[in-house]
Amino acid sequence: MMSAQPGSAHRARHFLTTEDLSGDAIGEILDTAESFISVGEREIKKVPLLRGKTIVNLFFEASTRTRTTFEIAGKRLSADIININTSVSATQKGESLLDTVRNLEAMHTDLFVIRHPLSGAADLIARSVPHHVHVVNAGDGRHAHPTQGLLDMFTIRRYKGDFRRLTVAIVGDVLHSRVARSQIHALTALGTKEVRVVGPRSLLPAAVGTLGVRAHTDMATGLSGADVIIMLRLQFERMSGALIPSAREYFDLYGLTRERLALADKDAIVMHPGPMNRGLEIASDVADGPQSVILPQVTNGIAVRMAILARLAGASAGEGRAS
Amino acid sequence: MMSAQPGSAHRARHFLTTEDLSGDAIGEILDTAESFISVGEREIKKVPLLRGKTIVNLFFEASTRTRTTFEIAGKRLSADIININTSVSATQKGESLLDTVRNLEAMHTDLFVIRHPLSGAADLIARSVPHHVHVVNAGDGRHAHPTQGLLDMFTIRRYKGDFRRLTVAIVGDVLHSRVARSQIHALTALGTKEVRVVGPRSLLPAAVGTLGVRAHTDMATGLSGADVIIMLRLQFERMSGALIPSAREYFDLYGLTRERLALADKDAIVMHPGPMNRGLEIASDVADGPQSVILPQVTNGIAVRMAILARLAGASAGEGRAS
Amino acid sequence: MMSAQPGSAHRARHFLTTEDLSGDAIGEILDTAESFISVGEREIKKVPLLRGKTIVNLFFEASTRTRTTFEIAGKRLSADIININTSVSATQKGESLLDTVRNLEAMHTDLFVIRHPLSGAADLIARSVPHHVHVVNAGDGRHAHPTQGLLDMFTIRRYKGDFRRLTVAIVGDVLHSRVARSQIHALTALGTKEVRVVGPRSLLPAAVGTLGVRAHTDMATGLSGADVIIMLRLQFERMSGALIPSAREYFDLYGLTRERLALADKDAIVMHPGPMNRGLEIASDVADGPQSVILPQVTNGIAVRMAILARLAGASAGEGRAS
Repeated sequence: MMSAQPGSAHRARHFLTTEDLSGDAIGEILDTAESFISVGEREIKKVPLLRGKTIVNLFFEASTRTRTTFEIAGKRLSADIININTSVSATQKGESLLDTVRNLEAMHTDLFVIRHPLSGAADLIARSVPHHVHVVNAGDGRHAHPTQGLLDMFTIRRYKGDFRRLTVAIVGDVLHSRVARSQIHALTALGTKEVRVVGPRSLLPAAVGTLGVRAHTDMATGLSGADVIIMLRLQFERMSGALIPSAREYFDLYGLTRERLALADKDAIVMHPGPMNRGLEIASDVADGPQSVILPQVTNGIAVRMAILARLAGASAGEGRAS
Repeated sequence: MMSAQPGSAHRARHFLTTEDLSGDAIGEILDTAESFISVGEREIKKVPLLRGKTIVNLFFEASTRTRTTFEIAGKRLSADIININTSVSATQKGESLLDTVRNLEAMHTDLFVIRHPLSGAADLIARSVPHHVHVVNAGDGRHAHPTQGLLDMFTIRRYKGDFRRLTVAIVGDVLHSRVARSQIHALTALGTKEVRVVGPRSLLPAAVGTLGVRAHTDMATGLSGADVIIMLRLQFERMSGALIPSAREYFDLYGLTRERLALADKDAIVMHPGPMNRGLEIASDVADGPQSVILPQVTNGIAVRMAILARLAGASAGEGRAS
Repeated sequence: MMSAQPGSAHRARHFLTTEDLSGDAIGEILDTAESFISVGEREIKKVPLLRGKTIVNLFFEASTRTRTTFEIAGKRLSADIININTSVSATQKGESLLDTVRNLEAMHTDLFVIRHPLSGAADLIARSVPHHVHVVNAGDGRHAHPTQGLLDMFTIRRYKGDFRRLTVAIVGDVLHSRVARSQIHALTALGTKEVRVVGPRSLLPAAVGTLGVRAHTDMATGLSGADVIIMLRLQFERMSGALIPSAREYFDLYGLTRERLALADKDAIVMHPGPMNRGLEIASDVADGPQSVILPQVTNGIAVRMAILARLAGASAGEGRAS
């Protein structure tokens, strides 16, 4: 899956994972995102940065939510957006996936936003496109969901400031979560003081130590003193039979209730990438409570995706085609 | 279903039903619609009134036709349009319907056009959105389809002028028709001289008297002297088994033929909200005949929907976010 | 299928088939297409030629690929695009097909791009629309796919120049190919020196002589000295059981390998309308080889479709509505 292509050039052209991003690189993207949110903080203005550019939302997995955020982000940048929802079965072999992309690229499209059920799909596509075309990974299997990871960093930075003083607890089905993977890499790159993963052992990655995070199977210790609590969605669709906890058991042990939230720092923020299973991962009163920044995450997602799209495709106008 | 929120403020922000609209309020919308139809009467020009605004067509029922009219209306106003077709089963609980909407709202969308199989869905959503966001009901269960109602009023006014001199016959499956409900309220508000509903007793509402209209089970008396004949679509999909008439029986008794049309005023216009069941509710020669204004209804639908979208979302630019 | 309407006026308003196009008429369209490809040859710039116009992509057959090319072409011309994917079963009778179109036309749409599984569907619709509305056939049954035909002519002209000196071999499932039909008419109109169809007898049209082309059942003679080789997709979905060759048999006899390609002129180009069945009609090393112009075909398809849309709907701005 990994690359022969030189990392940094590849990085500048595509947005595939948070794994190879430095803290500075992340900071620059977040700064760009900040510039898309105007003083009033409610308004994201439409800007002509990508006028005349064509962005293809190429989704091999249904995800109305993520597709919509990219569509809105692209339209706010004045790009033309082409939505393509297809199934992997329609393009089953790796080769025909690449034929599909080559064809779309031959239509002089500028940027692909890829969602695919297989890990590495976006990376594979990024390797095959000509160098003026950009690829953004909008979720590939269990591997990564880097725009979600970065909008979470943006949200944390806005609410809590300096990562070097923060303790972040990522709670729940870490094992199946591409979101968690992208968050952990970004948090580490940003120098976060402490990153914890919290959940039943069966839903934590075996090699959690290699990620540089601490594992907790008990919510009390896992949340204790945390500044940021990131709840994950239970990915039932990715679990094999034996490991599936009952909803009641799960909520009893790992659901975020007001009582448990009280164990964290009193100014802790509560995050969730959505869609939430209310009453399963999180109690409704916490989801809608004063410490929840779940809806601001969504708002921030537009600004961060605008930043990523603009930095990739905006840059290429002068550069890409010339070189 | 009904509201604790003060009627008039709620009304100004959303467009949910014709029930609470005064004749003057309707007249103002129709005047705005008139302004979108240029002198040549063929052309509806593109205008920049909603540039930078994002409209979400959130359809929980498939309706290519209605979705298309709103998409065209929105694009003529230069808004960005996001189409979302989803099923109620995907968002089954009221709570997750609201979560869906809250998420879309958090993306800084400005206006929701909602089609939903359950009565009251648009109203429920309107209650939950922040006050700079607008909701248009594009059909909720049997309850209302107010933009259809208003485009019908627009059509009647263009062809027949003053409502206070008109007799309007609404013919067919009134019981299951949200369109009829919206029409009756609007016709009443506009002071229509006489509104009749005509159809088999099994397809007329029991409480027809409370609506201020007269019921006719016989086409001869129902159409006699009418200035406007509105044929409704038979909503087989909403009828329970016992009440379904056979197609032949229905056409024999209630189909609009040339002979029956001759019973109405000689200048009567014939309307139908579409899609038509030709040979069932209406004979093809009548549908395509000189008294039919069925296609002009469609054209008028664009202008009226532009008027509604522009009045709601155009206004909020200065107001909504400031207050 | 054919028309009472005078050919040339009808032709100027619609783009339904290559059958009635003269070589000059084709040449003019190709010249317009050329103007949309800028000097650098990579860039197709966005132009405001159809600003304010509404194009409806009305697809009764799923075809993400063709729909996407028209959507991109329309957006590059600054038109508003409405995508409608529907099934024939939803509009089963000819009459309701026309009702569907009449309704969309009543919304003041300017141009329909029609894909339909039945031959003659686009023609039927073209006959029913008012004279300021345009129809482009994006594939009707086995009949025609004229924009594909013209983009192929554009590609041949760019690579090989004067048609009067060219030998063109069309290889494969000619019988079921609307693409082949459209190509043959265009090649003939352009005065191509020799047009051959090559394939198993069961996949060649019986009346091949009446098309003015030569039939070859042997690849060696069929490809000998050819300047252009057009491979067709095997249309399994249109073949009746008995005629379906096995994949291996087919490739052994008619697959385009490097060895067979060597039989053609040494500067021959290889074309395919896509999507390719690699290893069935064509070997991968030929598809991706130096003589392949398969991806340039796709690029050219955008320019040619822009040319067709612009010539039809751009013209009508002044003319159509006035007359």
